[in-house]
Order: sequence, then structure tokens, then C-alpha cells
Amino acid sequence: MAESSIHVPVPTLISQSVLIEPDAVRILDRRVFPFERTWVSCATYQEVAQAIEDMVTQSNGPLFAAAGGMTLAARAADALPGENRRAYLTEAADRLRATRPTHNGIREVVDAILRAAEPSLAAREPVAEVVEQAAVAAGDRHFARCRQLGEAAAELLDDGDTVLTHCWGESYVTEPVAAALRAGKRLRMVCTETRPYLQGARLTAESLAEMGVETVVVTDAMPAELMSRGEIDKVITGADRVTMDGHVINKVGTLQIAIAAHAFGVPYVAVVTAPDAQAPTPEAVPLEYRDGNEVLHALGHRTASTRATGIYPAFDVTPPRYVSTVATDRGRFSPNDLASYYNTDAPD
Amino acid sequence: MAESSIHVPVPTLISQSVLIEPDAVRILDRRVFPFERTWVSCATYQEVAQAIEDMVTQSNGPLFAAAGGMTLAARAADALPGENRRAYLTEAADRLRATRPTHNGIREVVDAILRAAEPSLAAREPVAEVVEQAAVAAGDRHFARCRQLGEAAAELLDDGDTVLTHCWGESYVTEPVAAALRAGKRLRMVCTETRPYLQGARLTAESLAEMGVETVVVTDAMPAELMSRGEIDKVITGADRVTMDGHVINKVGTLQIAIAAHAFGVPYVAVVTAPDAQAPTPEAVPLEYRDGNEVLHALGHRTASTRATGIYPAFDVTPPRYVSTVATDRGRFSPNDLASYYNTDAPD
Repeated sequence: MAESSIHVPVPTLISQSVLIEPDAVRILDRRVFPFERTWVSCATYQEVAQAIEDMVTQSNGPLFAAAGGMTLAARAADALPGENRRAYLTEAADRLRATRPTHNGIREVVDAILRAAEPSLAAREPVAEVVEQAAVAAGDRHFARCRQLGEAAAELLDDGDTVLTHCWGESYVTEPVAAALRAGKRLRMVCTETRPYLQGARLTAESLAEMGVETVVVTDAMPAELMSRGEIDKVITGADRVTMDGHVINKVGTLQIAIAAHAFGVPYVAVVTAPDAQAPTPEAVPLEYRDGNEVLHALGHRTASTRATGIYPAFDVTPPRYVSTVATDRGRFSPNDLASYYNTDAPD
Repeated sequence: MAESSIHVPVPTLISQSVLIEPDAVRILDRRVFPFERTWVSCATYQEVAQAIEDMVTQSNGPLFAAAGGMTLAARAADALPGENRRAYLTEAADRLRATRPTHNGIREVVDAILRAAEPSLAAREPVAEVVEQAAVAAGDRHFARCRQLGEAAAELLDDGDTVLTHCWGESYVTEPVAAALRAGKRLRMVCTETRPYLQGARLTAESLAEMGVETVVVTDAMPAELMSRGEIDKVITGADRVTMDGHVINKVGTLQIAIAAHAFGVPYVAVVTAPDAQAPTPEAVPLEYRDGNEVLHALGHRTASTRATGIYPAFDVTPPRYVSTVATDRGRFSPNDLASYYNTDAPD
């Protein structure tokens, strides 16, 4: 695609998600954004892990936070005797991987950083510098891949479309939108609010509006109603994982939106850098349950009868029959043809 | 069915919804229940209409509130010359009917009261007493019909079932549950929270728990996830209207739950006193849009980016292909066979 002269602003949540600084890793607190713009400072990898578990950041934010956490761990490791550094770094990697077991990005970035550190560890040399370089490189690689998947997904969005999205898909949604805007297409975006954390109402709505797109918020109960009246042209979401047999694992609620889209003939595009070669089927993916108490509150206020309990399955699994297209950094694939991803060259 | 020895408590919201008192009509404020138990006192039918529009009460509450409003109007009419009373009462009826155009119960109770008042109006006699009697009778008739539809729906609920419901279906849901409990069946109920007003989390959850049932709250995004894991045995909701061609009009969100239930083979039972003989198809039913700003708040707190707008379609229309059974005061019907309702005798 030719370079466009149209400038699309990068949303704050993408450009200022996690900062690796000399004294600490600073994470933009997504729990209160956009109402407050505050940063959580983490001096150790343990504090980073805790911040990820506390949902200070989410979506692809934990990828960058985990990279920051490994950087802090490497700095601490360098204060130890050379022969103890591998154990320390491995422990940090295990801790960070365990924060969000459904999240592929954390695992990948941590593994990449460990591989980069291995020669230094084997030589018992300091690792802080090589780890920080690897952390930055992992982020840059992620952004480059998102630019590619954005171009691939954007070709499915037509000028004048109203596009519904769920939760906060980060670059998996903002890059397709940005690519469509660069191509001169006009879009209208509908965001589900995404209870209990309201990522759609807060993060997605703010970010899409920052990009200059008309943005409408609906409750999580409304997508089918809009589709039944022909108000939605496409559904697009990010995916935490796509298994090799075409199941899309994403924020709970994606499944019922995809089923409704199928019922009303609305294409559903799931976006991910790559299908997960380590997950042949959904059974290979641990699905996270969060504290059911969170469902009984909104913004810290009790929303439910005190006589009730809550449950919070954080993810759901959308079978391939409800998925129209999987858009990746190597192009678009049918959910039934994902092995082809690994037979396709990465783009330049 | 033989009388059961099992006592099932009547929920507060049913037993104390609207009180017609000498000086005023008092409406239990469902916007803050169960966190606060406060009453809105209305001295005139106009105040009752405003309270209905302000959602002080909802579901079948407006039926009782409208009956109270007509009672207040009749008292005021009696202060006028006899020949002016019909015009005043008709104006009150129009005002009350207009509060929630999708709500059949308001229209029916107002029409029944006008019919009861007609002889007195024609004779230019006072109407307050006959209207109040008609208002009470309309309420009693409603309760008797709900007891019947409860028995009809309860036969579809099995011992040990986990039953999902959406929004607050009032007696349309509590009566089936009560009838099942009286028959010795054990149920577990799952309530969607039902944003933006949280009727499910607040009203349904509190009322079902008052009845002694284990009650779980989930977000509006979770029903399909639970169904995909076989966690839901039945779905049951009230209906604001069921059209003669089998479309169920109910709180927005019902449609996507019904579609998901169909996809996973979970029966969906819609409960209503009767299909609407005046609505052959959904096109005959005005569908209410409420202020989109409500979607951007929870319990008075802003939940969404200030750069976004909200939309609030209050109802959706579920086609008969996603409805398993319509349970009524005359028994159970296929959504494709609702004319049979009017060929069936009312039960004793």
C-alpha cells in the first residue's frame, strides 16, 4: 500500500503504556484512565508482577510490563555473583509468566529475553544491558507486527462502515482502524463498555476518539440488538490467543457477540499477531478465572445485592464456525486454515 | 397441582411495590433498592407519570403505579363538575399510557379502569371509589394470572437446574421459581447484572435470594460463556410483550442471550400473562429509546470516556426461532402457535 498523507494520532495508551526508566518501570494505570492519568512505579520485578495481577495494565500492556520486569530483574541479578544470575532471572521469568496465564504475549517476550540473555548468563557476565536491549527490541518487533496485521485487517473494513469492538484490543484494533483511516476510509466505531472493568467504555472509546473516529459506547447487552437492525457492518476484536484449530480466546463476551454476528450475517474479524503454534486446541490454553467479587462492583461501588455472589470467567472461547477471518501479521486466514500462517513468509 | 407445604417468601419488591394510600401513592424506589429502601410519594397522577418515566419503578411496577395514578386522578376529578370528569380522567389515562410506550401492562390496566369508571362518568357521579376498587382489582387479577403462569412455566424447570435470567422479570420470573420451589425442586439462579440500571444485580438477585434460592450475578457479557461450558440448564425471562407471530420484546440483551441459548441447545422460556392480540407483528410495537447518557454512567458515576456518546435502545426483539416456549396464564405455547392462547379457556 502506498504511504498515505493522512496522519492518524497514536493513542496515549499505545504511546505511553510502559516506560522503562533508570530507577523503575512506570506503568500507566489503566484502571483509572482516562479519568486520571497516573503511573504506577515498580522498583522490582515482583512489583511489576503484582501490578500486572492487579490489572494496572492489561491487553498488550502486560507484554511491555513483563519486558520491563525482566529489565529490573536483570539489574538486580547483576548485583549477584555471576553463577547466581541465571537462577534469579529464571525465577523472575516464572513469576511474570504466572501473572496472566492466558496471555501469550507475556510468555513470548519473557522467553525472547531469556534467549537473548543466555550467552551473557553462560559467560557469567552482567546481563542488564543485553536484557534491556532485548526488552526494547521485543516492543519494537511487536509494534512492527501490529502495523502489518493492521494493514491486513483494514482491507476488510469499507468506507462508511460502522464497526463494533469489544473490550480494549489495543494495537490489534487501533492498527486496523489506523490503516483504514490512512487509506481514506471513514469509520464509525461502537464499543461495548466491557464490564466489570469498563475497558471498552474507558480505554477503547478514549483511544479511538483520540484517533479522530466518531465513537459510541453501548452496554455489553446491546450488540445483537444493533445487529438485528442492520446497524453494524463488521465486528473486529483482538484475541488473547487463536488456537491452531481456529478457536478465538478473548475477553468474556466475545463469544456471544460472535454468535450474534453469525446469526445476522455480520462478518467477525479476530486479530492477533499469529495463531498459537503451542496451542493446537483450546484445551491447551489455561483460562483465567478472576475474583467473582469484581463483578459485584463498578468503579469501586457495590452494584449487586449483598445476598448474591459473583463469578468472573475472564475469557471465553469462540469456535471457528463463528469466526469469519483471522487477521495476522502475515495476512488474513480462514479460521480453518491457520496452518497456512506458518507456511507464509513474514512480510518485509 | 396439590397444595405444597413448602412456604416460599414473597419478595419485598412484589409485596411492597406500590401503595395506594389516602393522601398519596407511594412507590418503592427501585433505582436504589436494595441499597436503600425509600419511597417516592406522588400526590397527583402527573407525579406518578413522572416517577414512571424516571424509572422509580419498572418491570410490572408501572402497572401498579399507573393504577395508583388513575386513583389519584379520579380523586381530583371528583372535585370537578360531573360533566368535566371524563375529560380529566381520559387526559390522565393518556398521560400514563405515554410514560412507557412499550409497556402493555400500563395500557391494559388504564383501559380496564376507564371501563369500570364509565357508568359513573356517564351518570356524572363521583368516580374515586369505583376507580380505586378497579385499581385494586386489576392488581389482584394480575397476581392471580402470574400465579397461573408460574405453575405453567415451573413444569419446565427440573430439580437441580441452574437457570439464567436477564433483567428483573418480576412475577414473570419469581412466580415460576416459587412454583418450582413449592413443588420441591431445588434451583440455582444466575442473574445478568443488566446495565445500565443493574436491575438484575440489584432487584432480581435480592428478590431471588429473599426467596431462599442460591443466586449468582454475572455481567451481561457472560451468558454465552456459561452456556458453552454446560453451566446453564434453562433460560427464563419475562417479556414486555409477545407478538402474535411469536416475537418476544423484552429488555435489551434478551436477544443475544436467546441466540446463544439456541446455539448451545439451552431452552429459552419467555413468560408473559398473554400474547398481545393487538400486536400481530413487532412492527406494531413502539420500541422505546432512552437517554444514551445513561449508558455512560453507573450508579451516578461516569463510566465512559467523555469523548464518547452513548445510545440506549431499551428493548430488543427476539424472533420465534430463538424462543422454545411461551409460558402464559393459560399454559405453555409454541411461539409459532400463539393464536391457540385465545382458543384456550382461562384456568380457574
